[in-house]
Amino acid sequence: MTVAHAFSRTDLAPALAELRLLLGDRLTTALAVREQHGKDLTYHAGHAPDAVAFPRTTEEVAEIVRVCARAGVPIVPYGTGTSLEGHIAALEGGITVDLSGMARIIEVNDGDMDVRVEAGVTRKALNAHLRDLGLFFPIDPGADASIGGMAATRASGTNAVRYGTMRENVLGLTVVTPSGEVIRTGTRARKSSAGYDLTRLYVGSEGTLGIITEVQLRLHGVPEAISAAVASFETLEGAVDTVITTIQSGVPVSRIELLDALQMKAVNAYSKLDYPEQPTLFFEFIGTPAGVEEQARMVEEIADGFGAGVFRWSTRPEDRNRLWQARHDVLWATKMLRPGSEMKATDVCVPISRLAEAVLAARADAEAAGLTAPIVGHVGDGNFHLSFLVDVNDPGEMAAAEEVNDKVVMRALAMGGTCTGEHGVGSGKMRHLEAEHGPGIEVMRAIKRALDPLNIMNPGKIFRLDPSAPFPER
Amino acid sequence: MTVAHAFSRTDLAPALAELRLLLGDRLTTALAVREQHGKDLTYHAGHAPDAVAFPRTTEEVAEIVRVCARAGVPIVPYGTGTSLEGHIAALEGGITVDLSGMARIIEVNDGDMDVRVEAGVTRKALNAHLRDLGLFFPIDPGADASIGGMAATRASGTNAVRYGTMRENVLGLTVVTPSGEVIRTGTRARKSSAGYDLTRLYVGSEGTLGIITEVQLRLHGVPEAISAAVASFETLEGAVDTVITTIQSGVPVSRIELLDALQMKAVNAYSKLDYPEQPTLFFEFIGTPAGVEEQARMVEEIADGFGAGVFRWSTRPEDRNRLWQARHDVLWATKMLRPGSEMKATDVCVPISRLAEAVLAARADAEAAGLTAPIVGHVGDGNFHLSFLVDVNDPGEMAAAEEVNDKVVMRALAMGGTCTGEHGVGSGKMRHLEAEHGPGIEVMRAIKRALDPLNIMNPGKIFRLDPSAPFPER
Repeated sequence: MTVAHAFSRTDLAPALAELRLLLGDRLTTALAVREQHGKDLTYHAGHAPDAVAFPRTTEEVAEIVRVCARAGVPIVPYGTGTSLEGHIAALEGGITVDLSGMARIIEVNDGDMDVRVEAGVTRKALNAHLRDLGLFFPIDPGADASIGGMAATRASGTNAVRYGTMRENVLGLTVVTPSGEVIRTGTRARKSSAGYDLTRLYVGSEGTLGIITEVQLRLHGVPEAISAAVASFETLEGAVDTVITTIQSGVPVSRIELLDALQMKAVNAYSKLDYPEQPTLFFEFIGTPAGVEEQARMVEEIADGFGAGVFRWSTRPEDRNRLWQARHDVLWATKMLRPGSEMKATDVCVPISRLAEAVLAARADAEAAGLTAPIVGHVGDGNFHLSFLVDVNDPGEMAAAEEVNDKVVMRALAMGGTCTGEHGVGSGKMRHLEAEHGPGIEVMRAIKRALDPLNIMNPGKIFRLDPSAPFPER
Repeated sequence: MTVAHAFSRTDLAPALAELRLLLGDRLTTALAVREQHGKDLTYHAGHAPDAVAFPRTTEEVAEIVRVCARAGVPIVPYGTGTSLEGHIAALEGGITVDLSGMARIIEVNDGDMDVRVEAGVTRKALNAHLRDLGLFFPIDPGADASIGGMAATRASGTNAVRYGTMRENVLGLTVVTPSGEVIRTGTRARKSSAGYDLTRLYVGSEGTLGIITEVQLRLHGVPEAISAAVASFETLEGAVDTVITTIQSGVPVSRIELLDALQMKAVNAYSKLDYPEQPTLFFEFIGTPAGVEEQARMVEEIADGFGAGVFRWSTRPEDRNRLWQARHDVLWATKMLRPGSEMKATDVCVPISRLAEAVLAARADAEAAGLTAPIVGHVGDGNFHLSFLVDVNDPGEMAAAEEVNDKVVMRALAMGGTCTGEHGVGSGKMRHLEAEHGPGIEVMRAIKRALDPLNIMNPGKIFRLDPSAPFPER
């Protein structure tokens, strides 16, 4: 792992001394902690920060930012470290701000179905807190990520087809700006036309415009009836065509997830399940008991026309939990397919009518290149991942994976899709982001320069601030 | 009407000459056209631009902006002129860009339920075009507004409780930036984490950051069954409590609109209807036939507990259309209550649990001040309007209306609400916007300065660029 000290803008020592006065032993320069905070779960190279700070309040975060701003020291916000595109790598060194110590659930308004949490609260901790109120928070990336991190990457997950993403479910934020001001965006009202939508600007800004310290979220009522099913298909095409027809028919599924044969093999092995190792759809239906039954019947009919085998139903909560936990553990399951490898994930999202073409071509590209790359996806939204398992020390294999990645992304863009449905850009997808947005990138650059003129907030992420600079490698 | 020539930044004549070369007789300086383009439907004073341009393509809009940018001439984008907060007033003169000539429906993707339109397409024209496809676009402000204008003000309307607002239903935009660049934001994918959310930044930016020339919209399937009902209540409190309980019970109403007794009197007179002149709710239920019946039964039970009279059902499409047209004509109906007056509307939106308190206090404030001000609202979202009918030449009455307006807004903010649910800020709500956002306004200012350094795009709207400047009066 590189221990980076790229910034020479100032002497770091006086800033660290100031921060130590503020935080005491909640500031650490221990190598193990720094390295753990600078490396994510994927193929991206680690870049350790110079120190890690563990604030407990928004005011402490603001004070940390003010100290760093005065000294020109870079800052990397950190939630649970489960992002996938090098977001947490301290490319220029500096201070990582770990928000896991800010994990209070500040206020639940059950009559309005909203909640205010500190950024370090994880999605599972929030749902455990809400359980007895008949409410839940639906957004569920695979990991038990922090709400602040999920807002910063505009995360989604398996429920997005029904409940939307962080974009639709964040009502407002508390943000520490790059100069150390504390602002609150949004309100508790369900809608507003009050000026520029700063909430939506910070959601997905990946820590480059400020540090999110509190999040106001919309909640949803636990549905009266829930039912889940697993269906195996003869062909990948049959599975994807089932998805397209289901969505186009307007069946309000709450989850519809695709796993290809290789992905099912990985899931069976890791989660000790015994599903057929064939292209598979995981479904969930919610609503009134009659509504759930009606949806299920419609989908079974559609699937039958595309070569589905038997539907295996999970009606008991413990069976459903086991099923969805297996789905959420796909990253770990995938990694076990090839011990010692690292994962590199594509994340395209395409219009639903083009999904079969996009998935089948991606499958063929990976096979032609001889790469190990199972497919899993939130296909109701048109979003899927090809997870390359790569040997980072084999330049030929790395190049082959990048070539397939390029093909998959450029095909998605040509279909009217996006290079990232939910993982974000980090340092891994900059080139593709620029291909997607063209001259719009210049607007993003202008906003970044205006709001973070010192470029201290998570530098080197999302886009190149200097368009003549090279793209990052890993 | 003031014919403003406030900008002395340059000589206007050479710019007009350049624009005339580009547009021929699609550039006009005729006084009547200029005055019509500078005055909205409300109490706001008119400010005519120096000329009005009628472009036919995005490239023409870009050329107009480039000419104006070189000369420092202000630009005001114009759709149908139906905004309510002085948005279209050319406060500093300059060129109004009327987009009504850009009204092509560019591409309907029925398999993906999305459509791309030019900014001048109106919501009714779009729905007429979609009728045979079984699809519709739900966002419906009272007026037959343009899609571009609706995006610019982050409009909503009666369907927002079920379908969301322009924020949720715009997938992407074509925008001409203040320097005359053409950018495209978003994609046709249902979700994306690809960089800063420029789509959501321009939605609601009221023409201050660029001109929206094309909009990619999400569409929705026409529901299988639709039913509408009107219920009168003994008291305003009973009507609002019915709304709160309906929303808290999770009944998925598609519309739930409140009209107080005075508003019903206005509607009956204008739309030749014979409803009781009592506090009233207009409902719409959609879904499967069984689902609609179930929803209706639940709401009738709730309403019964709060003193509702008989529900009058409209099941035939022509009766429903008449009902909703009457709702959409409320502005005209209201104006007829006091001929010669002008309208000034509050637009607060509060958390649903606080709605009764907010509405009843607003009603009491208006009565105590002796003002004519019916109440109408999209109450399922917590959004309602007190429509003051004012004599703009009576300073005492104007001050009284502003005082009640202040009370209503400050109360909403204290409840966690917003000063504007759907009308936007324009020049009319700047003071309240600053009260709502506090130091966040400085972030908006920084974005405005970065993206429009010459301040030519709709100057004098949303917030004061210079915080020491006075607030606009009318």
